[in-house]
Amino acid sequence: MHEFEWIARYFAPLTRGRAEALGLQDDAALLSIPHDQQLVVTTDTINESIHFFAGIPPQYIAHKALATNLSDIAAKGATPYAYSLALSLAPSVNEAWIADFCAGLAAQQDAAYIFLLGGDTTRSSGPLSVTITAFGLVPDGIMLKRSGAQIGDAIWVTGSIGDAYGGLQLCLHPDIPIADEHRSYLMQRYHLPTPRIELGQAIRALATSCLDISDGLLQDAGHIASASHVALSIESEAIPLSDAALELMQQDILFMDLITGGDDYELLFTAPADASAQLMAIANQTGIPITRIGSVQPGSGVTLVDKAGMPIPFTKGGWQHI
Amino acid sequence: MHEFEWIARYFAPLTRGRAEALGLQDDAALLSIPHDQQLVVTTDTINESIHFFAGIPPQYIAHKALATNLSDIAAKGATPYAYSLALSLAPSVNEAWIADFCAGLAAQQDAAYIFLLGGDTTRSSGPLSVTITAFGLVPDGIMLKRSGAQIGDAIWVTGSIGDAYGGLQLCLHPDIPIADEHRSYLMQRYHLPTPRIELGQAIRALATSCLDISDGLLQDAGHIASASHVALSIESEAIPLSDAALELMQQDILFMDLITGGDDYELLFTAPADASAQLMAIANQTGIPITRIGSVQPGSGVTLVDKAGMPIPFTKGGWQHI
Repeated sequence: MHEFEWIARYFAPLTRGRAEALGLQDDAALLSIPHDQQLVVTTDTINESIHFFAGIPPQYIAHKALATNLSDIAAKGATPYAYSLALSLAPSVNEAWIADFCAGLAAQQDAAYIFLLGGDTTRSSGPLSVTITAFGLVPDGIMLKRSGAQIGDAIWVTGSIGDAYGGLQLCLHPDIPIADEHRSYLMQRYHLPTPRIELGQAIRALATSCLDISDGLLQDAGHIASASHVALSIESEAIPLSDAALELMQQDILFMDLITGGDDYELLFTAPADASAQLMAIANQTGIPITRIGSVQPGSGVTLVDKAGMPIPFTKGGWQHI
Repeated sequence: MHEFEWIARYFAPLTRGRAEALGLQDDAALLSIPHDQQLVVTTDTINESIHFFAGIPPQYIAHKALATNLSDIAAKGATPYAYSLALSLAPSVNEAWIADFCAGLAAQQDAAYIFLLGGDTTRSSGPLSVTITAFGLVPDGIMLKRSGAQIGDAIWVTGSIGDAYGGLQLCLHPDIPIADEHRSYLMQRYHLPTPRIELGQAIRALATSCLDISDGLLQDAGHIASASHVALSIESEAIPLSDAALELMQQDILFMDLITGGDDYELLFTAPADASAQLMAIANQTGIPITRIGSVQPGSGVTLVDKAGMPIPFTKGGWQHI
């Protein structure tokens, strides 16, 4: 099948008829940004055999490609708006694969009320590569950044940490014994991350800094520390772990690996210590749990401390991209 | 070397200090669009061994990746604004490669007065892949589209057609005899296309439709025809060919291949027949030659006609993407 037929049959419906996409006919999209809004732009690539296993269902690949981008939009406190898609197709890709991939995009984009703007579909002699550029809207001047954490702020994290790393380990070592429900929970957390879109928007008036955890909790905490010129002190026992991750820790999976493994796509943010009650109300309202895991202090870098406040040494912060 | 060091050393300088890029520290960029402007967004990917030869200088790859995107911006009559870069790096890529690649980006971005907004740098187990999303600005409501060609309009093309195809043939068959100056001209036209940015902006008040020729003159003419619900009649002898391409035609390179080979990155546009004098003045002013190659007629599709107006049959329109 020809590119233009694939575009018409599978990609054009993902524009949901929005005028901005010009029917995918113009090799370009045209956006009109409301005058009191700013446009947030973020780009993430996922490559076969690096960011996902070869041969996994195309729906999973589509979900992850969009979710990793929407997670960045969420971390900015922005409202997801649209996305463009660049797809480099391995020779093995056929029409059924495209149909499933687009079904995965459809489910994920509709959950976030966004649409496909445009993009490029190309052949590759090698592994599949998916690049998405996602767009979000945020009222003028209030986008959340990594900088802005203030000494005395509390450090918060959404959901639980290490589940995706656990799911990855179960993919690599399927013989690790674990309860079925925990296995399927961790696999889902690894393959189908949930961007914390609602929470990002709800906290933007309170949070002083924010990012999404993709490289690992400690490494990403380091990004807030360096951008904000402060130190982040994280209490190891406060880091929220799921029951499934706790069970994995009884099977030779190390706590340190869970909190540095990455791919969590949870939000890590700082907020004034007296905002706790308001933040807990937001968590309650959005149904997204949040946990206070430490405090912002003078200095630089990230310290992990035990119950007694003693530093716990760590060497590896997280994922190395290249 | 570590991703974050490469970003700081090679990519961050490409932001030219622009606030929108947030120092490449935030996994996102933040754009404020002037209230009377619209944002044009376009995405193009080039993959090693498909769109460029493995082992060519990194500067060429950077140039082509940016130029193909800027050519789309030019075809919209928009002013180039910024770009994001997604780079999937083959295992063989080292720091020297990155340095050269970024030097190529720097030269091309500065020529277009744009800057790097953000992006993603990832590892790939396979060939190099470069995806750029380029942004342009255009006053409200006047972006050039593929639709809009009117019956009676003249059809115009910038520069000369088929040079890039000729350069590609010289890469594939270096033993084709041709004058040195013609060889180097065609190689440059293939490796280092020039987006027709100034001309695109200058014609936007006159042109009724426009696109850039990437898939081949005849196939791209078909895109205007179908988007505009008209027929395009192109006079084969009016199609501008360079002296170098004419010499190649004496060496078994067919005229039909030159006009369907693609990668020209010339603008194809339609305009009212009485706009010729104004268009020629613009060509003169910008130093970018334009040639009238046909007319818009009732019907559908593209007809290639000879001097006597008789149709010349053709089967292959141009490049098949996937």
